[in-house]
Amino acid sequence: MELAKRRGFIWPTSECYGAVAGFIDYGPLGAMMKRRVENIWRDFYVIQEGYYEIECPTIAQEAVFIASGHVKGFSDKMCQCPHCKEYLRADHVAEGGNIPNASIMKNEELAAAITPCKCPACEEVLGNVEVFNFNLMFSTTIGPGSQRTGYLRPETAQGMFVDFSRLLRFYRDKLPFGAVQIGKSYRNEISPRQGMIRLREFTQAEAEIFVHPNEKNHHPSFKRYAEYRIPLLTHIQQQKCEDPVEISMREAVDKGIIANEYVAYYVALTHELLVTIGIKPERLRFRQHLPDERAHYAADCWDAEVYSRRFGWVETVGIADRTDYDLNAHAKQSGTPMTVFIQYNEPKKTERRRIIPNMSILGKQYRTKAKAIFEALITAMPTPEGADIEVDGEKIHIPANLFEVRDEVIDIRGEDIVPHVIEPSYGIDRMCYAVLEQAYDEDIADGEARTVMHLSPNVAPVQVAVFPLMTRDGLDTIAHEITRTFHKKGILAEYDDSGAIGRRYRRQDEIGTPFAVTVDYDTKENNTVTLRDRDSMKQVRITIAKLPETIGALVDGSITFTSLKP
Amino acid sequence: MELAKRRGFIWPTSECYGAVAGFIDYGPLGAMMKRRVENIWRDFYVIQEGYYEIECPTIAQEAVFIASGHVKGFSDKMCQCPHCKEYLRADHVAEGGNIPNASIMKNEELAAAITPCKCPACEEVLGNVEVFNFNLMFSTTIGPGSQRTGYLRPETAQGMFVDFSRLLRFYRDKLPFGAVQIGKSYRNEISPRQGMIRLREFTQAEAEIFVHPNEKNHHPSFKRYAEYRIPLLTHIQQQKCEDPVEISMREAVDKGIIANEYVAYYVALTHELLVTIGIKPERLRFRQHLPDERAHYAADCWDAEVYSRRFGWVETVGIADRTDYDLNAHAKQSGTPMTVFIQYNEPKKTERRRIIPNMSILGKQYRTKAKAIFEALITAMPTPEGADIEVDGEKIHIPANLFEVRDEVIDIRGEDIVPHVIEPSYGIDRMCYAVLEQAYDEDIADGEARTVMHLSPNVAPVQVAVFPLMTRDGLDTIAHEITRTFHKKGILAEYDDSGAIGRRYRRQDEIGTPFAVTVDYDTKENNTVTLRDRDSMKQVRITIAKLPETIGALVDGSITFTSLKP
Repeated sequence: MELAKRRGFIWPTSECYGAVAGFIDYGPLGAMMKRRVENIWRDFYVIQEGYYEIECPTIAQEAVFIASGHVKGFSDKMCQCPHCKEYLRADHVAEGGNIPNASIMKNEELAAAITPCKCPACEEVLGNVEVFNFNLMFSTTIGPGSQRTGYLRPETAQGMFVDFSRLLRFYRDKLPFGAVQIGKSYRNEISPRQGMIRLREFTQAEAEIFVHPNEKNHHPSFKRYAEYRIPLLTHIQQQKCEDPVEISMREAVDKGIIANEYVAYYVALTHELLVTIGIKPERLRFRQHLPDERAHYAADCWDAEVYSRRFGWVETVGIADRTDYDLNAHAKQSGTPMTVFIQYNEPKKTERRRIIPNMSILGKQYRTKAKAIFEALITAMPTPEGADIEVDGEKIHIPANLFEVRDEVIDIRGEDIVPHVIEPSYGIDRMCYAVLEQAYDEDIADGEARTVMHLSPNVAPVQVAVFPLMTRDGLDTIAHEITRTFHKKGILAEYDDSGAIGRRYRRQDEIGTPFAVTVDYDTKENNTVTLRDRDSMKQVRITIAKLPETIGALVDGSITFTSLKP
Repeated sequence: MELAKRRGFIWPTSECYGAVAGFIDYGPLGAMMKRRVENIWRDFYVIQEGYYEIECPTIAQEAVFIASGHVKGFSDKMCQCPHCKEYLRADHVAEGGNIPNASIMKNEELAAAITPCKCPACEEVLGNVEVFNFNLMFSTTIGPGSQRTGYLRPETAQGMFVDFSRLLRFYRDKLPFGAVQIGKSYRNEISPRQGMIRLREFTQAEAEIFVHPNEKNHHPSFKRYAEYRIPLLTHIQQQKCEDPVEISMREAVDKGIIANEYVAYYVALTHELLVTIGIKPERLRFRQHLPDERAHYAADCWDAEVYSRRFGWVETVGIADRTDYDLNAHAKQSGTPMTVFIQYNEPKKTERRRIIPNMSILGKQYRTKAKAIFEALITAMPTPEGADIEVDGEKIHIPANLFEVRDEVIDIRGEDIVPHVIEPSYGIDRMCYAVLEQAYDEDIADGEARTVMHLSPNVAPVQVAVFPLMTRDGLDTIAHEITRTFHKKGILAEYDDSGAIGRRYRRQDEIGTPFAVTVDYDTKENNTVTLRDRDSMKQVRITIAKLPETIGALVDGSITFTSLKP
């Protein structure tokens, strides 16, 4: 983290005013790396899966979060230390004091239970404290005169649910379809102390995939991942304290370990995506939520956990089958139906009994009441003697000769169904943290200790460094020209002519630049340069003309450095 | 706008709960287009100019905005209609009532002036109302217990100023350097009524370029734009009601029309960028701020204005020379110096008089007071008779024999200076609106009226459509395969097999897809497809193998459709 601060990956926010916990700045290198991680995510979800990105505001009106349950239920249990006045998560205090079942206690129980616990900030025994719920949404006011309460969204997901009808029309009324968002979300954590792992403002990448409830076991591309093997830690293994077991997605679905093909497909896609950005497979596992940990409406939920030397196993991605919970909640709150009309392959024949009142007689006999009687009659359950109906509280018997009963066979073309939602939800900041932590290394280069970031070339901020051996004899001019050519191709190249070559290599190793080009006196003879690989420190000579294409292919992974001819 | 909503470019936010003014959603096509506009911006500023992007939180602590002046000064004058209770911009009411100088009136004056004006909402005469200041920042509370006030940033700029010291170190203590941010900003507008033009949550792309105050006329790449000609509307022309005049950047700087090369360079770069995303040059002008419109500290300020059929000339980009105002304000508020040490080319010789007390005598004579006397003496102004100093309020005469006066010549290596800031600030939503408005067209195709979006290929959401002529005989399989190949190359292709070919073309024309590929029976014979150009509606045959490369080059503008051989 010291290197990350010094070299400009991340640093505390508004440091000169005293940093505020739970907020960070991505510096020049960090923001570039984050952008690359986000774009790889887009490549998987938007380009390959075909789920379009949308962009909703980060502020939303209260009704949205009443429907989602956040206004009522999105809170942590909090207390204040009577000695140092620090605000504390009461459940964390209880866990620190080895009090069991703290997470399911009511506020009064929890307050009583933590009386003998020490304040983690000042170490005094807490004594009597009040435990209360603290809603984790940041609230604000939209417009003047406190007209309207607004909240900063605690997740991007709700925007996609609220836009369901628009999205359905965009996808021409057909299931399955999906939408994604990458953007800021906010949680007003009580006392965040874990750097990039627990932020009050963070970036999520979420996909909401709307599927027919009966089709969850028929992902159209499931065969892509059917034989993909991943270490899974099921809720049963966790309860037995067993280790994760590597298993194929096909087998996991067939054995009922993962609820359905859709969930399994995104578990596997998530694994592939995390490995693509540079997470080591041996530091990656998928843990199923325990029954009491899972939201009551979720059919299944798996967390991708990445092992951190500092924080242990860190939940980084969640993949959940949220069923029809969200759409039903918003349909109810807004009064807008959120259904899809599913046409049957062929219309279903259904018998229906139809009642046809004889209006000429009814009209004469009942006059002004005739219309109300007509309406009551067509939904009545007549007997051979007639029908007993109620109009304006008055019970009326209508004899059988005043209407005809006809049994018909009709065609039902289809039905309205509420889709289920499969949600892969990624914490971009935690992914960036894992990438940085795993890339950091200290080794020996040219007999000296070097600090190196083994960043995957597709996420490294600077993609190639360009060095002139000397800043004279035109070597610097050639190096500048090469740098410009890279820029024109959209490749981020950094020119550096300051200090000895060895020192320049060390500087680039430290920020994870995967490749370095050196312009030397041979360049003037034959238009070749040396191309050096950060990890192996091997070098090859290559013609200038081939540079942009070669670096492009090395960065997107379509060729490897060892495949280059020396 | 109807098309934009129907086809998924933009739509009102959380419509099912009643949309809130000042917020919009980018739908699937709009978000994709916005992303492409942002990436073109990055290509200009990050890749070409070499100004790294950083990412600061959207919530910042109060001290930041006390320093920037937003807490005190970022407000609009507001009143409430006593009849319909609507909140109104008091200055807008006055302008609507043709009251001159409303913008410079005090609250009481303005309240008196608007008494006879009608409420724009209910049309009643306002009468006596109170005018008060309404701060346009959204405020919230960070952490529990109302511990800390936070604001949603009204601009991204402050993050770059606050990070100045970190950035300076990242750029190895050398000027000029720059940083950029693309992200959300927030202004709690009193009563926004202009759709995408006045949003409460909007996206800015801002660059802050830190330069030596004496170097503002020496932009290192100025020659790139020296002969670039742009219609400029100076403040003098505006006061005389004259039309803009087209002029080269060289001439504009030489004649003192634009304050310096840096401002002129970014005026020209902005022009090129806006034309690149598809703004027509004839709908683009640069207007200089009037002296009373410009911030008091700004040395010069130009707005790129884009002509809208609906809103007239709309300010879309601002380019300002903000001098050293921001860094001085944050240095003062935070107590952290925000300067750069500038080394002189060669050290400057400076004469300095040094006083060297004779401590052995002073020590004996003054004992415990000797140290205080020493400190007073070395900064004293001695005469030939001695020095008169004051120690703890006591005046003491020190005879000349108790110290030596030595005149020295010393080297000054350099000086600390506060850089000036040049700020190009882009409103991404307004750019997107202008692109959409200008692209919309209705023309005749194949004898029928068609609606077409003439989006520049580099911002069009879908880059190519792929149609099988029929969904049989393997044509659909080939078309699916072509679509997948595009996706692998990162090209957004949309497969469509529903309806007649003509109808499929119309659908793609309507969303601005620039190119369409049709797979027909000849494809099976010779592996060629037809490639159709949206604007000219011309078609060429092309081999499947060449498709990805050709579409890639057409989209990035390196080739044109007319250059393809039929």
